[in-house]
Amino acid sequence: VKTGMRRVAMIGAGMIPFGEHFAMGWDEMIQRAYLAALDSVDKGLPTGDIDGGFLGCCRPGLHGQQTQGGVALASTLGLRGIAASRIEDGCPTGSETVRVGAMAVASRWNDVVVVVGYEKMRDATTEGLLGIALEGHPVHNRGETSLVYFAPQARAHMELYGTTAEQMAMVSVKNHRNGALNPLSHHGDSGLTVEQVLDSPMVCDPIRLLDCCPQTDGAACVILAGEEVVDRYTDKPVWLLGAGNGTDAYWMHEKDSLTSYAATRRAAEKAYAMAGLGPSDVEMVELHDCFSIMEIITTEDLGLAEPGGGGKLVESGRTEIGGDLPVSPSGGLLSKGHPLGATGVAQMVEVFSQLRGDVAAESPERQVAFRRGIAMQHNAGGKAIGNSIVTLWGQQKP
Amino acid sequence: VKTGMRRVAMIGAGMIPFGEHFAMGWDEMIQRAYLAALDSVDKGLPTGDIDGGFLGCCRPGLHGQQTQGGVALASTLGLRGIAASRIEDGCPTGSETVRVGAMAVASRWNDVVVVVGYEKMRDATTEGLLGIALEGHPVHNRGETSLVYFAPQARAHMELYGTTAEQMAMVSVKNHRNGALNPLSHHGDSGLTVEQVLDSPMVCDPIRLLDCCPQTDGAACVILAGEEVVDRYTDKPVWLLGAGNGTDAYWMHEKDSLTSYAATRRAAEKAYAMAGLGPSDVEMVELHDCFSIMEIITTEDLGLAEPGGGGKLVESGRTEIGGDLPVSPSGGLLSKGHPLGATGVAQMVEVFSQLRGDVAAESPERQVAFRRGIAMQHNAGGKAIGNSIVTLWGQQKP
Repeated sequence: VKTGMRRVAMIGAGMIPFGEHFAMGWDEMIQRAYLAALDSVDKGLPTGDIDGGFLGCCRPGLHGQQTQGGVALASTLGLRGIAASRIEDGCPTGSETVRVGAMAVASRWNDVVVVVGYEKMRDATTEGLLGIALEGHPVHNRGETSLVYFAPQARAHMELYGTTAEQMAMVSVKNHRNGALNPLSHHGDSGLTVEQVLDSPMVCDPIRLLDCCPQTDGAACVILAGEEVVDRYTDKPVWLLGAGNGTDAYWMHEKDSLTSYAATRRAAEKAYAMAGLGPSDVEMVELHDCFSIMEIITTEDLGLAEPGGGGKLVESGRTEIGGDLPVSPSGGLLSKGHPLGATGVAQMVEVFSQLRGDVAAESPERQVAFRRGIAMQHNAGGKAIGNSIVTLWGQQKP
Repeated sequence: VKTGMRRVAMIGAGMIPFGEHFAMGWDEMIQRAYLAALDSVDKGLPTGDIDGGFLGCCRPGLHGQQTQGGVALASTLGLRGIAASRIEDGCPTGSETVRVGAMAVASRWNDVVVVVGYEKMRDATTEGLLGIALEGHPVHNRGETSLVYFAPQARAHMELYGTTAEQMAMVSVKNHRNGALNPLSHHGDSGLTVEQVLDSPMVCDPIRLLDCCPQTDGAACVILAGEEVVDRYTDKPVWLLGAGNGTDAYWMHEKDSLTSYAATRRAAEKAYAMAGLGPSDVEMVELHDCFSIMEIITTEDLGLAEPGGGGKLVESGRTEIGGDLPVSPSGGLLSKGHPLGATGVAQMVEVFSQLRGDVAAESPERQVAFRRGIAMQHNAGGKAIGNSIVTLWGQQKP
């Protein structure tokens, strides 16, 4: 981390099962995620020690929780009085909320901060949600959905680099297999085959139904603490090594490439620089695979594969849980689901559980074997990725 | 500021005239505010030095700018690539966005951060905006608007402390007179009388039309920098001394008082503690006077008047620009307007201009005379004030 920057660690992390929660309000969802995170703090956390809170949610208005989400957070979790507010950043909302929470601790404004991300995607018109998330410019994008942006990127990557539909399908097969080992995943099919993906309905050529993440309700919570107080709460903190937020053009037609995301390259560069690390140090990635092509392009932009080499990377088996560079052992967005505000926070939950070795107890096959204990997390969104967040976490204090 | 915390200063601040901007899109509004802030940086700021940005806006979806406001900010201001996101916190959105921007600098994540707040309140259904801002609980608040919360508080304050309608009217008269001296204010009537306020239509007893702030479009921008780089850009920085965010219950019926705001007391306590200052050090306040009763209650909660003494404080003349404790020399929300996301940022613009003495050049009658050079800013919102932000700023580096 930068000279003079206070170190920040995750001392707790938890989430509710992702899926369809028609019977659970947003308030119960965030309460359950918070309680799961509290439960994970091995030495216990007196809740009076929490002095700040940040809520990540894209469109709280769609399901009854409106503006001033910070107050809703503090009030709903029994933390009335703390400093609190809401962060919104499109699909990477959850990760940005954790990044801002880390700033609150690193700046010494707060010692212990609770970060909660949630989204209800099933109750209200999710078409409206995603359509609105992609803005309503009067000329540029009437009638466009996410796939209208990602499909030409997939096609361009296939044309330029020879990436195949089979390679995209392999991403989906791997992540569904991982998700089947994760009891908190929305979907998960350990027996899904490449053929089944290739036989699934074409949604927007060349992206098929099983190349797409589901629409999911979810909530997740992490608790961050400053270096001087970490030991009070846990013997197994997970340290923040670096975090970068990179932006790119808002509109698709302003971008300089269809086959690489400048926002991701910028976010990764910032995170690597802050951590003093490079791609070869990364031992595991939770990656924003909203569509299978995203994992292929993003492994390249994170420096984990050569440009154009993302398809071959998944083919190599290295990104399996047993490989040397597991990608999305949680199941990723493709299997676990993508409740916008919760997604990034849930990725941190997986990083936390994996780096602490907690996954082994519940699902040994899903536990990643670390060498130095360094994991990466990536969350992105907007039209052809206008914003990307990359974080690096480690078992050892930086 | 706290031990080990990096000092943060405003190096630039600017805003567009508040008012009705039917002919100006949100993008042009934030561009103009940003250019005004850049213009105020006396040694100049190469825009390539800006490495972070935060956008404050409550309901961007109401007027065409949707989620991922950080990308919209970076892209619209020609700052593609910087770290950026959006903060939402109801009525104090703007102040919380500045507080988060200050965290980004204080934590050393960024050296120079641009913070922009805006809201378009006139284009779309503002009734919808405010109704939605107050949430849609199925039982507690159907059909309620802001006044339904503030009117009983005004009545309770009158009953408990003998506060009068005349004292409330004096707040409005003072702030309209101040606003008439501010070319950027939405309204402003230097000749408004207490009688005129008392003769204005009753909106929700005991609050009359001229006790209410107008519905206003606006945008404002401040630029923050870390202590090591401040000198590159200005010889007249305005230093952040303290900032507190306090929350209270979400629902009116959960609150413990109608005549005092716990969120404001908590925010003030945090800001004073961080700054090592107390109420007697404050020489000027920009205060959230959405209704005239708010200034009366809030001067008490900030410790600037005894409990119940807010009415007498305005009567005393001390809160006039020429008094020893000017309150809202900008005109306040009552005159200048209250475009939610912009309000807090615009209050910082006033603090910046006043502490630097810049107001004197344009409007000598409006310039506050400082002794030690310490100003306070207060911004609050939600049902009966669920959240409050208080900041303290100074001419001298803390």
